[in-house]
Amino acid sequence: MAEETKFVEEIVDQEDNFSLWYNQVVRKAELADYAPVRGCMIIRPYGYAMWENVQHLLDTRFKETDVVNAYFPLLIPRSFMEKEAEHVEGFAPEVAWVTRGGGEELEEPLAIRPTSETIIGHSYARWVQSYRDLPILINSWNNVLRWEKRTVLFLRTAEFLWQEGHTAHRTPEEAEERTRLMLEVYRAFAEEDAAIPVIAGRKSENEKFAGALRTYSIEALMGDGKALQSATSHNLGDNFARGFDIQFLDADGQRKYCHTTSWGLSTRMIGGIIMVHGDKSGLILPPRIAPYQVVIVPIWRKDADKSAVSELIARVEKMLKGKVRFKVDWSENTPGWKYNEWELRGVPVRMEVGPRDAQNNSVMLVRRDNRAKEPVPVDALETRLPEVLDEVQRALYQRAVEYREQNTHYTDDYEEFKKIIAEKRGFVRVKWAEDSEAELAIKEETKATLRVIPFDQPEGGVKGKCIYTGKPATCEAIFARAY
Amino acid sequence: MAEETKFVEEIVDQEDNFSLWYNQVVRKAELADYAPVRGCMIIRPYGYAMWENVQHLLDTRFKETDVVNAYFPLLIPRSFMEKEAEHVEGFAPEVAWVTRGGGEELEEPLAIRPTSETIIGHSYARWVQSYRDLPILINSWNNVLRWEKRTVLFLRTAEFLWQEGHTAHRTPEEAEERTRLMLEVYRAFAEEDAAIPVIAGRKSENEKFAGALRTYSIEALMGDGKALQSATSHNLGDNFARGFDIQFLDADGQRKYCHTTSWGLSTRMIGGIIMVHGDKSGLILPPRIAPYQVVIVPIWRKDADKSAVSELIARVEKMLKGKVRFKVDWSENTPGWKYNEWELRGVPVRMEVGPRDAQNNSVMLVRRDNRAKEPVPVDALETRLPEVLDEVQRALYQRAVEYREQNTHYTDDYEEFKKIIAEKRGFVRVKWAEDSEAELAIKEETKATLRVIPFDQPEGGVKGKCIYTGKPATCEAIFARAY
Repeated sequence: MAEETKFVEEIVDQEDNFSLWYNQVVRKAELADYAPVRGCMIIRPYGYAMWENVQHLLDTRFKETDVVNAYFPLLIPRSFMEKEAEHVEGFAPEVAWVTRGGGEELEEPLAIRPTSETIIGHSYARWVQSYRDLPILINSWNNVLRWEKRTVLFLRTAEFLWQEGHTAHRTPEEAEERTRLMLEVYRAFAEEDAAIPVIAGRKSENEKFAGALRTYSIEALMGDGKALQSATSHNLGDNFARGFDIQFLDADGQRKYCHTTSWGLSTRMIGGIIMVHGDKSGLILPPRIAPYQVVIVPIWRKDADKSAVSELIARVEKMLKGKVRFKVDWSENTPGWKYNEWELRGVPVRMEVGPRDAQNNSVMLVRRDNRAKEPVPVDALETRLPEVLDEVQRALYQRAVEYREQNTHYTDDYEEFKKIIAEKRGFVRVKWAEDSEAELAIKEETKATLRVIPFDQPEGGVKGKCIYTGKPATCEAIFARAY
Repeated sequence: MAEETKFVEEIVDQEDNFSLWYNQVVRKAELADYAPVRGCMIIRPYGYAMWENVQHLLDTRFKETDVVNAYFPLLIPRSFMEKEAEHVEGFAPEVAWVTRGGGEELEEPLAIRPTSETIIGHSYARWVQSYRDLPILINSWNNVLRWEKRTVLFLRTAEFLWQEGHTAHRTPEEAEERTRLMLEVYRAFAEEDAAIPVIAGRKSENEKFAGALRTYSIEALMGDGKALQSATSHNLGDNFARGFDIQFLDADGQRKYCHTTSWGLSTRMIGGIIMVHGDKSGLILPPRIAPYQVVIVPIWRKDADKSAVSELIARVEKMLKGKVRFKVDWSENTPGWKYNEWELRGVPVRMEVGPRDAQNNSVMLVRRDNRAKEPVPVDALETRLPEVLDEVQRALYQRAVEYREQNTHYTDDYEEFKKIIAEKRGFVRVKWAEDSEAELAIKEETKATLRVIPFDQPEGGVKGKCIYTGKPATCEAIFARAY
């Protein structure tokens, strides 16, 4: 890509055209690229480094809850897909089929996994004999494929990367507990690592996973006021256990069905990070996710200056190695060009090192989020730099919380509801009596969907009427237009 | 799986039936399982944990040579596969084709990647403009599919996990240097991490990668005297650059083709580790690869003893946490059963902790490889245990080197060559004048293939005649029957 095309001046303002801004940032920051196969993407090294950090942080959290990793096949026989009725109905339209292999037509077409409940159910049925074999707590990092009509890089692509956890339990209570535990893991990851505030709760019947008893999700608000479902956790009850005959001999001598769960988070989260934190200059990456937490920009004109600057930088590199992820930009571009470039790429902290800094034995730190400058003596860097990174991490989260608060609306009046959805976007929190038909009607009339019924409900229960049906409300629900 | 079926007594002796032994060990140690789709496998948590260690160790080595990770699509348009003539000829018979997606027949069938040179070539052509964009040094961890007729868990499966590195360079020299560098990375990984001695060298024309200028490989000798190609590194010349038009503007103002390389190591390596180090009691895992480096087995009869034992173990756990990968086996089985179980699973060191150990404030370490016992005071454990693990790692490597030396044969006589291959197996090192037809004839007559032309050749050149054609020898080559 020619260097000029990267210039930050060419990015459209978020306010003017958010989706164009999104696409430009993804492309110019070299996070991802469209693939020659419709709906598929290439995740470029800078974007993939973000995903590696997501993987590492999330995988560590999973393992703290005794989850282990494994790998299941990419291809699933058609007959497997058909064993859980709701499941096949939900996924069949999105499946890609392998019909030929090794030069021959296959007797039975094979689905490229859109998700792996079925093939994993088949395995668990063979692995589980007695209650002593339970629980099974397995996760898999893999690629899945869902034939999507309209695609957006990271947010909705035919092939995407994700993790899918699959557990099997002795009792319904244990399955429910695990389902909720994993949602909590996602919440903690989103808020503490990705700096994205989320609302955790339950999905409506309309929006739950095909084949699940209950689906929980975390929902985040993007910079354009649309919602993004950021991760889901499903209590599958004994639906898949019955479909695949996952039974165990309990201590009481009875054969019983297991209760299973599944839960996933995908490369979509990368899209969420971009849309929550970015600004008109480009990406702003939370330090815990950023491929480079610090970019060091040397500044010099005369050769004599360069050697002083480079000596100081060598000392800084030695000091920070293994403690902070950093890059020194020694390229031939001007410092100003580099500032723009690394702002576009969202590096949380820039470290400027010029001749005067070298003389004073100090460096200048510049925060990406608020552009605050702070000179720091080199001797204090090892302590101060991690603090600054923590400050950026917290500030991004705080700013996103405030943005969400400003863009969360409350109303008991459906006409006002429609107006908010049409004009302001954001979350709209309303009193609600669960009703699938009313939900579909609202979607039809406003394009807003029921995102989540938050765990966090008014103490003592909800009083008043459902915003749409007028029936006695049973909960508060959050509606929004969504990705 | 019922517990009794795991008993080590049921494993056949390697000497009697090596391939049955291999399959039993893989299944009983719960490394992998056959999938319901022909030729595919499920990698179970214990096997996958080995792969995670392989990934981490190898990925670290890659990154030390400035390689970054990225992700390219699973699906490749048929037209792409056809752009490099030798490549399509080599891979076409093994490809699985997606012909339907989203409920419709596709206009162009899509191949599930058997390898990604083509789709990556297409990307590089768009990313590379000037010599300043070079080199590109990208690796991808992913899954690939090759429709195989006969499959063996880990060694040859239709779908497998691997990494494939793809680099693009300005000059042929640079591409050759990178090809050799990555082979050296594989050699170091195999010998230092997997404790497998390998012979590094060049593949013959017959055996090189479809579309490559030159293929290098590392070859290891398995416990049954058969060879295993453990990793390959290909100098692709400008073949793919011409096929996909990967050109750059050089400093001299000329447009030139890039020179590309690719290199890969797969889950096959797990099979190699099993076959090189295992014995009649099951697996023996090199400490650097082992999911658990130490298994702690508590021994007690009376409740009073149990509490003393458990107190000591709690102290040991605290001491070792984060330093050594260990597991405490508190299951209800007898100590003897546990010894067998964890020997089968190849844990390098067993730590026995009984009431007398608790009294003496010491533990008993037992090495898996030679069963040597060593009492170690708890206070010395933090120092001594890592040393013992290092000793096991080195001993495994040393034993494999000795085994290979005993099973490497030298002959100038083709009749003797045939006898060795038929009766003794192992590597046979012979004088050779490169000749594809002679190579095929030998394969036909003996089932042995030319594994590798070692880098390590006699000083001053090879003197004498080719073992098969009688022409003046140009090199020494290694033949063997192979997986």
